[in-house]
Amino acid sequence: MSTETTTFSGIVPPIVTPLTLEGEVDTTSLERLLSLQIEAGVDGLFVLGSSGEVGYLTDAQRAQVVQTAIGHVGGQVPVLVGVNDMTTNRVIAVAEQAREAGADAIVATAPFYAITDAAETATHFRSIHAAVDLPLFAYDVPVRVHSKLSPAMLVELGREGVIAGVKDSSGDDVSFRMLLRQSAGLENFAVFTGHEVVVDGCLLMGASGAVPGLANVDPHARCAGRRLGGGEGRAGSTHRSVLHRRGTDTGSRQCRCRGSGRIQDGSGPARRHHRQHDVRPDALARRVRDRNDQGRSGTGGAPLT
Amino acid sequence: MSTETTTFSGIVPPIVTPLTLEGEVDTTSLERLLSLQIEAGVDGLFVLGSSGEVGYLTDAQRAQVVQTAIGHVGGQVPVLVGVNDMTTNRVIAVAEQAREAGADAIVATAPFYAITDAAETATHFRSIHAAVDLPLFAYDVPVRVHSKLSPAMLVELGREGVIAGVKDSSGDDVSFRMLLRQSAGLENFAVFTGHEVVVDGCLLMGASGAVPGLANVDPHARCAGRRLGGGEGRAGSTHRSVLHRRGTDTGSRQCRCRGSGRIQDGSGPARRHHRQHDVRPDALARRVRDRNDQGRSGTGGAPLT
Amino acid sequence: MSTETTTFSGIVPPIVTPLTLEGEVDTTSLERLLSLQIEAGVDGLFVLGSSGEVGYLTDAQRAQVVQTAIGHVGGQVPVLVGVNDMTTNRVIAVAEQAREAGADAIVATAPFYAITDAAETATHFRSIHAAVDLPLFAYDVPVRVHSKLSPAMLVELGREGVIAGVKDSSGDDVSFRMLLRQSAGLENFAVFTGHEVVVDGCLLMGASGAVPGLANVDPHARCAGRRLGGGEGRAGSTHRSVLHRRGTDTGSRQCRCRGSGRIQDGSGPARRHHRQHDVRPDALARRVRDRNDQGRSGTGGAPLT
Amino acid sequence: MSTETTTFSGIVPPIVTPLTLEGEVDTTSLERLLSLQIEAGVDGLFVLGSSGEVGYLTDAQRAQVVQTAIGHVGGQVPVLVGVNDMTTNRVIAVAEQAREAGADAIVATAPFYAITDAAETATHFRSIHAAVDLPLFAYDVPVRVHSKLSPAMLVELGREGVIAGVKDSSGDDVSFRMLLRQSAGLENFAVFTGHEVVVDGCLLMGASGAVPGLANVDPHARCAGRRLGGGEGRAGSTHRSVLHRRGTDTGSRQCRCRGSGRIQDGSGPARRHHRQHDVRPDALARRVRDRNDQGRSGTGGAPLT
Repeated sequence: MSTETTTFSGIVPPIVTPLTLEGEVDTTSLERLLSLQIEAGVDGLFVLGSSGEVGYLTDAQRAQVVQTAIGHVGGQVPVLVGVNDMTTNRVIAVAEQAREAGADAIVATAPFYAITDAAETATHFRSIHAAVDLPLFAYDVPVRVHSKLSPAMLVELGREGVIAGVKDSSGDDVSFRMLLRQSAGLENFAVFTGHEVVVDGCLLMGASGAVPGLANVDPHARCAGRRLGGGEGRAGSTHRSVLHRRGTDTGSRQCRCRGSGRIQDGSGPARRHHRQHDVRPDALARRVRDRNDQGRSGTGGAPLT
Repeated sequence: MSTETTTFSGIVPPIVTPLTLEGEVDTTSLERLLSLQIEAGVDGLFVLGSSGEVGYLTDAQRAQVVQTAIGHVGGQVPVLVGVNDMTTNRVIAVAEQAREAGADAIVATAPFYAITDAAETATHFRSIHAAVDLPLFAYDVPVRVHSKLSPAMLVELGREGVIAGVKDSSGDDVSFRMLLRQSAGLENFAVFTGHEVVVDGCLLMGASGAVPGLANVDPHARCAGRRLGGGEGRAGSTHRSVLHRRGTDTGSRQCRCRGSGRIQDGSGPARRHHRQHDVRPDALARRVRDRNDQGRSGTGGAPLT
Repeated sequence: MSTETTTFSGIVPPIVTPLTLEGEVDTTSLERLLSLQIEAGVDGLFVLGSSGEVGYLTDAQRAQVVQTAIGHVGGQVPVLVGVNDMTTNRVIAVAEQAREAGADAIVATAPFYAITDAAETATHFRSIHAAVDLPLFAYDVPVRVHSKLSPAMLVELGREGVIAGVKDSSGDDVSFRMLLRQSAGLENFAVFTGHEVVVDGCLLMGASGAVPGLANVDPHARCAGRRLGGGEGRAGSTHRSVLHRRGTDTGSRQCRCRGSGRIQDGSGPARRHHRQHDVRPDALARRVRDRNDQGRSGTGGAPLT
Repeated sequence: MSTETTTFSGIVPPIVTPLTLEGEVDTTSLERLLSLQIEAGVDGLFVLGSSGEVGYLTDAQRAQVVQTAIGHVGGQVPVLVGVNDMTTNRVIAVAEQAREAGADAIVATAPFYAITDAAETATHFRSIHAAVDLPLFAYDVPVRVHSKLSPAMLVELGREGVIAGVKDSSGDDVSFRMLLRQSAGLENFAVFTGHEVVVDGCLLMGASGAVPGLANVDPHARCAGRRLGGGEGRAGSTHRSVLHRRGTDTGSRQCRCRGSGRIQDGSGPARRHHRQHDVRPDALARRVRDRNDQGRSGTGGAPLT
């Protein structure tokens, strides 16, 4: 997939990494999961994000995930690869592996463990961009990295062509809207939300798309979030507005998905990962079930309101 | 105004406290400001909030603000009074003064300076409710109080009849939506947002109303945020949805306001207060101008998008 | 007690505020407690600190504590009064009451609830100093106030004559030593530690004194911390060094106390206050016992090592 | 060096990693630096700590540092290797490399980037210990990892034989003393401080040793911190006490170092690292100079007081 023509928008699920009972990557399950996503009509796939447990996998396991995903997807949709690591040179090292494997884009956080400031963080992204010839997304996740990426810096990096967009998991709605407003004039700059609980509001504000963890279990419903609603009741109204707002961006390709016509689940972001050396979840199902249990309660299967 | 029949919803501006050059409460300006709000059609008035500089005023000045406001408003709209102080008994002391002065409701944060936990915070609200016969709103403002009120606790307090609602200035959109969902079945429980930048999204989610600081300078536009938009362009679409969502709550009374038909300003919350002993802003205009300068930049006068 | 000749050093216990079963100030118990302290040889008394529950008392109760303490002590030792409140003008209001009641010094934190920066915090202390003719101590307690006072700012305020010293409850040992080093050349600048667990180390570094909460139950042992140890074992060695370091400051008056010759208790600072509207501890004993229970465990009655 | 007989105490400098102009590991300079340390009489060497820029080096560079250090030191003193990484399995992977290269001990933080709790952190250390047959030190550095290791957990892990000790860079003096007290009865449990500014106080409290970054430039003075002082003035008194306290632990071997007889520098910990992709410091000297410039000011060359 040529990077010149790739644009990024829509539903880009952060794919979980199924493990075997022995704690190794379960490539068969991973391929099945990827097929399910593509069949549901996702607009891209994001592997080795926080949901993909990038932080818990060894280098060898990370390479295995990337190769499996890119091989199996075969260019049907863009594959974005998380390259989160402590500092610039370490990120570049894994990003180069992702590029060689055929990734369509990379996703990186600010440095962590290192104690940096905003200027150094900007240099970090510029250095990655200079070293790795792939679209680069900045991943804003203060709950993990313990620093917040400011809209002003992100827009400046977009203007310079350093980043192709942002995946926002900050939970800061005011900042998110500021980012959308300030980046409104930038071409080829995509802003994704990582928060499913407020995904309709984010799309309404003008977000390019969403990175919904629950697509791992129900990608059809996630894709249906983009569909023209039936008009009856709240969700219909909400999503009519969403589509009105997003205009021609939400064209035919995205509507090929066969959803249930409503958003089924507003479960919040999983707040805790539980992968330790002696905890070896056996399969995807358990992983996702645990994640839901850990999430904020009370969001059941009802439509978002 | 009888508290039995008072319901709380809609646009309830947090009124700033004009000061004279000598740093005393400028009651003439305060009355003018209150008249402007009522004329614009606000649904209530909130004095001695953070915007009202409750933290910077002495006890005597606070009493002056409350008496001036309640006397001038004369029951045309409900007056909510901020009773923020360090701990329970101190809050009760000022709340009793507010009740005697004729307040329609009181608004209190969790304890601060004190080091408390969630159970003690719940006891705090229960104790205030037991001591002061007025509707009590919980004010969630972690940037000042350094603790977050959980949706679960707020809903439980609502169920018990301890609080009549919440003013949310947490900036945590996921938590806000959870609060709305979990409190959806409660009667007489009003959830207000304090964030103007995302006010349309919050109303769309089901918020009872907003507490918009910029209503101090342009209350008509704030009220217009509730109006059925003209249909052209984004704002129209947004606000049509908002009104569709809010249904009969947004009835005739609210539509009597004469707004410009669009939200004029998306300026973020003022992040800093600058009242020190030797800094005596002379009038409302300067106060509000400073506040805007301190806010997040780039939100000009354009419609929210 | 004339402020011109008052110097501040040594053991200055932060006096708890005994309450009756009804939650009112138990002035009889308070006077007994003050007598016990003076008899034990304390160098000063600090009322309405965090241990004195300044945050939990109403204005009327605060006034009662100050008047009782100053009347009962009768100038035998200096009485320092905590004037913690949210912002400058409110602090000045209570500080003026303390001055009128005869306080020898006042102790104030940075503003809280208000969102300030370092420059505003410096202005805060300068404004208090300009308004209230009493020695002013800066109280550094980030766990409550959520900002840290920098050594550089404190030393500058000392150089200007704005503050007479610092009560450090920051728990940041590196910062504490920097403050001691940078203020070493200042006359009439006293640095107290609020941390009993490390009090010997702090005195060894050159602290002017300590504000030990446990003096409320055992002031003799606290005063004995200043005494020339017997030479046997660790504590003796420690305190010989302490006295060697403190030189002539630790003169005859301080040695009149009749301690056990060793530090009996290394219990940490009470981390939690538990005064709520419906929690009315009946007496000093229970208060102090609770405080100990809440402290860090495992510090028993053994000497500090 | 057999791990059965290795004990850990005294001065264990965290060795910086010299880089060439091209940003590669300057092994010649590294060897010179190691020789300087051994000649000065250090009790151990710690490579790939935060000072060694573990977070900024690629895996290949880390391996180069470990192999160079272990080969050059040749068993004259123990070599401890930092194995900081995001999560358990990743730590184990690098720890196994360190063990194969001949490390005498490994030093690991709690997980970071991952969102864990105390129970998971304990499991993390237990899993590392189970997988890697080397003494394991827990590295407590909240400013980087954003969680604090509690004394209770560390003592429990020591009791189980999971960890051989702690390197404390928390800056929390109360917690540090609690750790020392609670671990006093444990055999083969070494507690090191990473804070040079308060190193004498920490040794006085009973710390097993120090990990002083400035030993990189002046190891003799660092070692002299253990020596019997000359008796004149404060430092002499301080260090006499220190040695008195440490008793036979500070025996003949440690005193072979040829220091200046006083601690020359109280510079605080470098608060910031400045290694970015396009910032390639040319040599050790510049690195250390920068670090000092970034440190807390005003600590010049005077003895600690």
